[in-house]
Amino acid sequence: MRGVLKVSELGEFNLIELLADIVARSRNNAESSWQQLLLGIGDDTAAWQGDQSIQLLTTDTLVQGVHFTPQATWEELGWKALAVNVSDIAAMGGLPRYTLVSLALPGDIEVESISALYQGMVEMAHQCGVAIVGGDVISAPVVVITVTLQGALPSGSKIPLSRSAASPGDQVAVTGHLGNSAAGLKMLQESLEFDAETASFLRKAHLHPQPRVREGQLLLQQGVKAAIDISDGLIADLRQICKASRVGARIRVDAVPIHPLLQAALPGGCLGLALSGGEDYELLFTASEEVMDKVKRAMSCPVGVIGNITAEGPGTVILIGEKGSTIPWDKGGWDHFRE
Amino acid sequence: MRGVLKVSELGEFNLIELLADIVARSRNNAESSWQQLLLGIGDDTAAWQGDQSIQLLTTDTLVQGVHFTPQATWEELGWKALAVNVSDIAAMGGLPRYTLVSLALPGDIEVESISALYQGMVEMAHQCGVAIVGGDVISAPVVVITVTLQGALPSGSKIPLSRSAASPGDQVAVTGHLGNSAAGLKMLQESLEFDAETASFLRKAHLHPQPRVREGQLLLQQGVKAAIDISDGLIADLRQICKASRVGARIRVDAVPIHPLLQAALPGGCLGLALSGGEDYELLFTASEEVMDKVKRAMSCPVGVIGNITAEGPGTVILIGEKGSTIPWDKGGWDHFRE
Repeated sequence: MRGVLKVSELGEFNLIELLADIVARSRNNAESSWQQLLLGIGDDTAAWQGDQSIQLLTTDTLVQGVHFTPQATWEELGWKALAVNVSDIAAMGGLPRYTLVSLALPGDIEVESISALYQGMVEMAHQCGVAIVGGDVISAPVVVITVTLQGALPSGSKIPLSRSAASPGDQVAVTGHLGNSAAGLKMLQESLEFDAETASFLRKAHLHPQPRVREGQLLLQQGVKAAIDISDGLIADLRQICKASRVGARIRVDAVPIHPLLQAALPGGCLGLALSGGEDYELLFTASEEVMDKVKRAMSCPVGVIGNITAEGPGTVILIGEKGSTIPWDKGGWDHFRE
Repeated sequence: MRGVLKVSELGEFNLIELLADIVARSRNNAESSWQQLLLGIGDDTAAWQGDQSIQLLTTDTLVQGVHFTPQATWEELGWKALAVNVSDIAAMGGLPRYTLVSLALPGDIEVESISALYQGMVEMAHQCGVAIVGGDVISAPVVVITVTLQGALPSGSKIPLSRSAASPGDQVAVTGHLGNSAAGLKMLQESLEFDAETASFLRKAHLHPQPRVREGQLLLQQGVKAAIDISDGLIADLRQICKASRVGARIRVDAVPIHPLLQAALPGGCLGLALSGGEDYELLFTASEEVMDKVKRAMSCPVGVIGNITAEGPGTVILIGEKGSTIPWDKGGWDHFRE
């Protein structure tokens, strides 16, 4: 007799697959909602054909004690809770528009803290043109913040960026630099001491991320098809693209862009953080060499080409060292129930 | 010196007002998102002008130990988590379309429970044409289920039903019967024993509510302007309409529709449950006598006219007894932090 299976034994990704399967079996093609659906479970956002433009919807939940960095201010928490959703819309090439905020709160929390949380959210919303239009406030033993964000593709765009559109031969690239957010978290958790500029830079990277909204739209305009935002770490998120696109990828580790401040602060550890640290909220995307050249010319932020999409086993990400040899890698981003 | 104010001292409704105020001050009329917004914080759903049709978005969170009825099966929980959101869309006269489900779960929960939860959600989704298109699964010390639902008004409808459109002289009416859900909860909590038909009827009313989607659309078609779904209780929700519309209301308690099975089961307590029990998910609406007559003819479910909108102090709900005298009433629905 098989014992009772717990969620922690199954793991986050398997659980999501199981639930996605229940939903897939419920698909009803007689309904216009299902007919107009372009992307359901499994991408950065859901996407469907609206009256004219493609509509996007995403949600993200933060739980106190699980996702909150203890050193974060309530304002930083509010900013980040919305920013991570904005980043999901950015990864589709979309414009963020309307957000709902659901707050589960213990009764003994200070009103001022929640005001500050909202203040941070309002600042992020203001920066990216989002209107906060509703939500829910309820009682709970721990703080749980669920932010839902609606967005749309610019009119005229027929298909969003997605995880499933990478092709063998594509180049793989990222915006900006990787590993700063994870280094910021490490600095806060381990009370590491750096010079003021580095400390402020790393703290901001972790607690005040800047989603790449303009860059996502530019990717779409220039003809890029496959993208994801880096939330779980470069390798884990590239694996998501590879799995969804049924391709493999080879990454040259010496091409992974690391900021000079991070390189100087953590010379031994920065590569590991850049490969698997997570929460960078940079865009990871793939495109033909021709499209990639156009992107590099059009983009005002750094664009680093770090490898290629291959026809190797679906979901396989291979790391190539400086001398061309493969590097074994067994650490693969976050699983919320396992790590 | 003023002491530190806790959320529990401020109360749910005051906290929502405070947060709504922070958001209102952040309004940016230069942004198209704000320009196209029709209803923000404070109605059953947010509403904005889409490319053609009016778009609706709502969210609702259930917390284990706060909202879960311990006797509920996981399937019933899943059904209800989606149904309460569908009811919000129904209260605007809208069609529910796409939903995201965010699950915060302890790792030691059984996979089978979560499958059953999804099964219940899938059944509700199937019944009302909704596609489940994404979400989030994360680790937390208690189960927190946040469901977000997108919907739209039927094309051609220019303005949703809202809480703020009641006028003095309007009749006040409700669909169906009130108090069954609260009676079901009371039966489960206090292990009350009724005949099988009554027990099943009350349990279903509480754990398997049927949102009034068709009825909401019919209200809109027939020219009704003001509506809300009854989630916090008749009086509390009527107060919401009165506050938002800056009007008062007088309700004849003997006109409040109570189902014969409830009347027989709890003859002494049924009126109190019908007035303030909550979670009926019936529609409460107001309209001129002429529109109300059209609604009554068009509607296939019972429609009970229970009183009138008055020009009395905004938010004032007065109860009138059988002999025409006013009945004092000091209990007013749920406040999540205070009760």
